[in-house]
Amino acid sequence: MSLRTPYLMFIGDAADQLAAKTAQGVVHWRPEWCLGQLRLEGCNADLGIPDMTLEDAAAAGVKTLVVGVANRGGVISESWSATLVRAMELGMDIASGLHTRLGDVHAISDAAEIHSRALYDLRHPTRSFPVASGVRRTGKRMLAVGTDCSLGKMFTALAVWKEMEGRGMNVDFRATGQTGIFIAGDGVSVDAVVADFISGSVETIAPDHDADHWDLIEGQGSLFHPSFAGVSLGLLHGAQADALIMCHEPGRDHMRGIPHQPLPSLEDCIALNESCARLTNPDAKVVGFAFNTSKMSDTEAEACLKETSDTFGMPAVDPVRTGVAAIVDVLEKM
Amino acid sequence: MSLRTPYLMFIGDAADQLAAKTAQGVVHWRPEWCLGQLRLEGCNADLGIPDMTLEDAAAAGVKTLVVGVANRGGVISESWSATLVRAMELGMDIASGLHTRLGDVHAISDAAEIHSRALYDLRHPTRSFPVASGVRRTGKRMLAVGTDCSLGKMFTALAVWKEMEGRGMNVDFRATGQTGIFIAGDGVSVDAVVADFISGSVETIAPDHDADHWDLIEGQGSLFHPSFAGVSLGLLHGAQADALIMCHEPGRDHMRGIPHQPLPSLEDCIALNESCARLTNPDAKVVGFAFNTSKMSDTEAEACLKETSDTFGMPAVDPVRTGVAAIVDVLEKM
Repeated sequence: MSLRTPYLMFIGDAADQLAAKTAQGVVHWRPEWCLGQLRLEGCNADLGIPDMTLEDAAAAGVKTLVVGVANRGGVISESWSATLVRAMELGMDIASGLHTRLGDVHAISDAAEIHSRALYDLRHPTRSFPVASGVRRTGKRMLAVGTDCSLGKMFTALAVWKEMEGRGMNVDFRATGQTGIFIAGDGVSVDAVVADFISGSVETIAPDHDADHWDLIEGQGSLFHPSFAGVSLGLLHGAQADALIMCHEPGRDHMRGIPHQPLPSLEDCIALNESCARLTNPDAKVVGFAFNTSKMSDTEAEACLKETSDTFGMPAVDPVRTGVAAIVDVLEKM
Repeated sequence: MSLRTPYLMFIGDAADQLAAKTAQGVVHWRPEWCLGQLRLEGCNADLGIPDMTLEDAAAAGVKTLVVGVANRGGVISESWSATLVRAMELGMDIASGLHTRLGDVHAISDAAEIHSRALYDLRHPTRSFPVASGVRRTGKRMLAVGTDCSLGKMFTALAVWKEMEGRGMNVDFRATGQTGIFIAGDGVSVDAVVADFISGSVETIAPDHDADHWDLIEGQGSLFHPSFAGVSLGLLHGAQADALIMCHEPGRDHMRGIPHQPLPSLEDCIALNESCARLTNPDAKVVGFAFNTSKMSDTEAEACLKETSDTFGMPAVDPVRTGVAAIVDVLEKM
């Protein structure tokens, strides 16, 4: 799987800006691929890029219509379906991050067949992956890990990617979730893979590479999350990361979705991640912290990052507030 | 899903006894459910139970034909398919442990529909499971864990089940793999579940129960196996086990299928399993060892078990040689 670019960003009748979060992430990290947005009547979101009709998009060379919206009830409505069918008539593939499969809507699967277009349901991997071999791969790898879910692991990996690209380093971002896949144009929704193949899927998307090349692998979940830790451990073993960046949101008082579960301490989280990671890469170590300090004042954030950095003797950054240069300085020397 | 019993054990044209390993396990642990075996021409395996025609089996009240054989090339041959169709005509459901799905063979899926029979592909869970909640459940639970794959975790859990049943305890065996599911009549192939639902599937199959009830949960893989550790960790978190039994084969010199990977020490394996298990059950602890000493002499095995027991201050048994009474003594007091 490799999505054809550029994209037309379809956000349908998104109820609000949050419903278009996936599309917004893609526009943020891949502005050059997002030629325009297509909104239907009643759409309350705006990606801040030109509105385009399907015909405009086709004329501009768009290759894939990206369904980058969380819809109400998880169904693909009639109005959407007509738009997607027309996009295929005009030569576009369709890629979706919805739970509902595109191919389960007859009008859409029929049109894909008639016009020989590809349908990509990023939440439903169709590739089959090998069982992981655990054999060390060439090249260098970074994995974003964390104390919990949803605290900026993808953002951190992407910020490192941009910083490394800016420095002219040899680097790729490796996506393990749907938004990341739209941004990379390839990858695997690792939490949707059959359990036996978690590590194998990660070995596949971050294969052998040049000695000076960095794969920056998007993390998922946390070894301390009671619902998803299996995904995180398989990802950690498959990644064979040399460097781990520990992502965290100070002040979060329980694991996401699990009100009774406190977050682990940074010390415990570092110790368990390093110890497990060393099963497949004995050199694995945490090299810095990426905090989400969005709920703190500037002064609070600065104090928090400094204290963390002093305590652990490693850089502590907020990718949004401070950028990730301090961490990339460390990676560049590895 | 609950398989209807009793069973007719179909071993087709099994090339050798090993190819009928699954069926043999079911006969061993559920002799009362296995009324007979059905072998086709060229079968080189024998389960040691009466040969039966489909008509005999139907007359004897068989409800499910169990495909308990690893076939050549993973395909369902024409000769098998005719037998399975006829079994459905005679009123039986079909349950299979093959990689190939029964429903992918048209003759079989058509017959299932015509005769309203159920097809169970145990390697392909069709139930959907919730994301794990991590909420503590009532009742007591034991999980078999291990230093590696394929060293007797299912056998150990089943031996404990038989021992507890013999003592009149309130107990269920909870299956997490295909052979176990045939034996329990229910369960989930946890390694075939979508990664996000590993822990949730285990919470589902071992739900709230009486305070004095034991769920004996079949383990899978190892936290130290580079291919499958994600499954093992999700299983560990979902199980919320009070007691862990550490399974091990002394003398094994590398992880199964991974020639470059040594086995962990028992100390490390206990430490990591207990530390991870305590995320969802702070009281979790390893209470004994179940060793597979089949490659040792009686004297060697006895010395090895005694040394392990002395070192760790816990019972060390070989479920085959010594039985598991010493471990059940500990569980009974919990």
